[in-house]
Amino acid sequence: MNLQETMLIAIEAELQTQVSRLEKKHTKEFHQMLTYHMGWSGEGAGTQATGKRIRPLITLLATASTNEEHNLSSNWLNAVPAASAIELIHNFSLVHDDIQDNSELRRGRKTVWTKWGQPQAINAGDGLFVIAYQSILDLSKHYAADVVVRALQILSDACLLLTQGQYLDMAYENRHDLSIDDYWHMIGGKTATLLSACTHMGALLGYADDQKIEAYRLFGYHLGLAFQVQDDVLGIWGDEAVTGKSVASDLVEGKNSLPVLYALEKDAAFAKRWKSAPITADDVQEIAKLLEDEGAKTYAEKISAEQTEQALLYAKQAEPSGEAGELLLGLANKLLKRNQ
Amino acid sequence: MNLQETMLIAIEAELQTQVSRLEKKHTKEFHQMLTYHMGWSGEGAGTQATGKRIRPLITLLATASTNEEHNLSSNWLNAVPAASAIELIHNFSLVHDDIQDNSELRRGRKTVWTKWGQPQAINAGDGLFVIAYQSILDLSKHYAADVVVRALQILSDACLLLTQGQYLDMAYENRHDLSIDDYWHMIGGKTATLLSACTHMGALLGYADDQKIEAYRLFGYHLGLAFQVQDDVLGIWGDEAVTGKSVASDLVEGKNSLPVLYALEKDAAFAKRWKSAPITADDVQEIAKLLEDEGAKTYAEKISAEQTEQALLYAKQAEPSGEAGELLLGLANKLLKRNQ
Repeated sequence: MNLQETMLIAIEAELQTQVSRLEKKHTKEFHQMLTYHMGWSGEGAGTQATGKRIRPLITLLATASTNEEHNLSSNWLNAVPAASAIELIHNFSLVHDDIQDNSELRRGRKTVWTKWGQPQAINAGDGLFVIAYQSILDLSKHYAADVVVRALQILSDACLLLTQGQYLDMAYENRHDLSIDDYWHMIGGKTATLLSACTHMGALLGYADDQKIEAYRLFGYHLGLAFQVQDDVLGIWGDEAVTGKSVASDLVEGKNSLPVLYALEKDAAFAKRWKSAPITADDVQEIAKLLEDEGAKTYAEKISAEQTEQALLYAKQAEPSGEAGELLLGLANKLLKRNQ
Repeated sequence: MNLQETMLIAIEAELQTQVSRLEKKHTKEFHQMLTYHMGWSGEGAGTQATGKRIRPLITLLATASTNEEHNLSSNWLNAVPAASAIELIHNFSLVHDDIQDNSELRRGRKTVWTKWGQPQAINAGDGLFVIAYQSILDLSKHYAADVVVRALQILSDACLLLTQGQYLDMAYENRHDLSIDDYWHMIGGKTATLLSACTHMGALLGYADDQKIEAYRLFGYHLGLAFQVQDDVLGIWGDEAVTGKSVASDLVEGKNSLPVLYALEKDAAFAKRWKSAPITADDVQEIAKLLEDEGAKTYAEKISAEQTEQALLYAKQAEPSGEAGELLLGLANKLLKRNQ
């Protein structure tokens, strides 16, 4: 078993331990909502349902790759409660997102609100949120209190940005007057925020010095931005076989993605069409072609490449070492090259 | 100005500072949702809309009344971010409660979801939750990291109990097979949880020793239970002029309050009527009389008196001193004697 597989097993075990706080006589059903959402119970449970646990994995790889004085080969074991906390925050946001977006399915399974109703699903999300904080507080078993407080600050700052990003995402729906500047405010609070919290916290818990911690943080941040922009490109021009998403669904959903905002700022043929009426599945190919002709795909790919370059620059400064370092860079490359 | 008035001003200023984290160009409307809910902006803003801030006040009075070695007359100023955190958690739960209960009004004003829709209101509640954690982390300015971690643990434990209580509250709706044992599980996660967090955290931040901290914690806990049971009595037999609630609305709403569960366990005339059909406003007086005749009021009043006695016993052990001590005991008495 390689290091990554060992880490994934440790992550899953920690998540189950944290969520088991609700496994009591009177709250069995509440516990069941969370184990269902996490992919461990109910119809369709299994690895397909759990997601890839990329965020906690990146956290532990960051810890294990810092290679500092305090470092031992298994130092990452102490950081597992922090990795678990980030995954729980991610899942809290998914449960609430699904209610907010009225999504009935996630990873091919009914969402929590579809099964238990909105009121209980709101509370299930709140439960995951609280347990994330309980999880990170468990760092106290292995870290000094000042390190725990710093980790908590990183988590809380990320959560505030998440709620801001979520606010903007909802506020921007059906608006046609947005700029590329608005885009960065919105996505700054999404993928990039949590990924930067992963590498930031991981390096902190590996006892890296402040300069290195900052390099890790910026590596995660730009990795997240590059990933997000690339996701926007794939959402319009991607290969369904690679992305698992229905191609061009972002256009039909009216999503304010970077290519769309670029073309809206150009205010040419695409902008006129976009503002006139919603795009239907039948129009999609033609509209995607129009968008590409106006330079939106090239622009977004350029931005994604710039962010990737930034991420790799900070990765070089962070100098992740050993097997964990190789795995971390490999995972980053995999995230960034989904379309190749 | 007495100490209590000074504290209330400090609490309100701290709450505004904490919530102002969202007062940025792109998140002005998000900020507005929170300032509206907190009672500072929008129609009907003002002291009527803010609520009484009893929880943060009890927290600061606990800190100021510990009278320990480290204590100075103004030591409570350092604890203000913790008091603010508890009030923000209370308000997070109110925003989500209002969605879950489909309540259109709170304190005579439209609820957040009524004004901004459910998706944004879910996120507004999440925002208050995160800011509560940001607020308590600000204790780091004046307290050692190990004290901050203990305070965070108290807050998180209370939040987990809150979500459990909320789960049970919703799960128990429309059920007629509940026992008094179920009642304690449900209300253990409500008023009592947050009030015990107030006195617990307050004493911790006043540098009380562990024995005294435990006495403060139990004082708050039993105060909360006594208050909750008394609230159940007032919800059926209370004087509307005193409680501000429509009398007997608890019966019409089908609330599983302690008097009702007592009578259901007796399984006599009331139980039969309760299970047969919902109570209407026209039936209320007759049903309340029936419930009283079966001993439910006497029973609940006895339980409330027992919990009050327990609270006062622990208050004696806690020995709250000085002006703050007098104010704390005065406030507790006021909470417990609303019906006199």
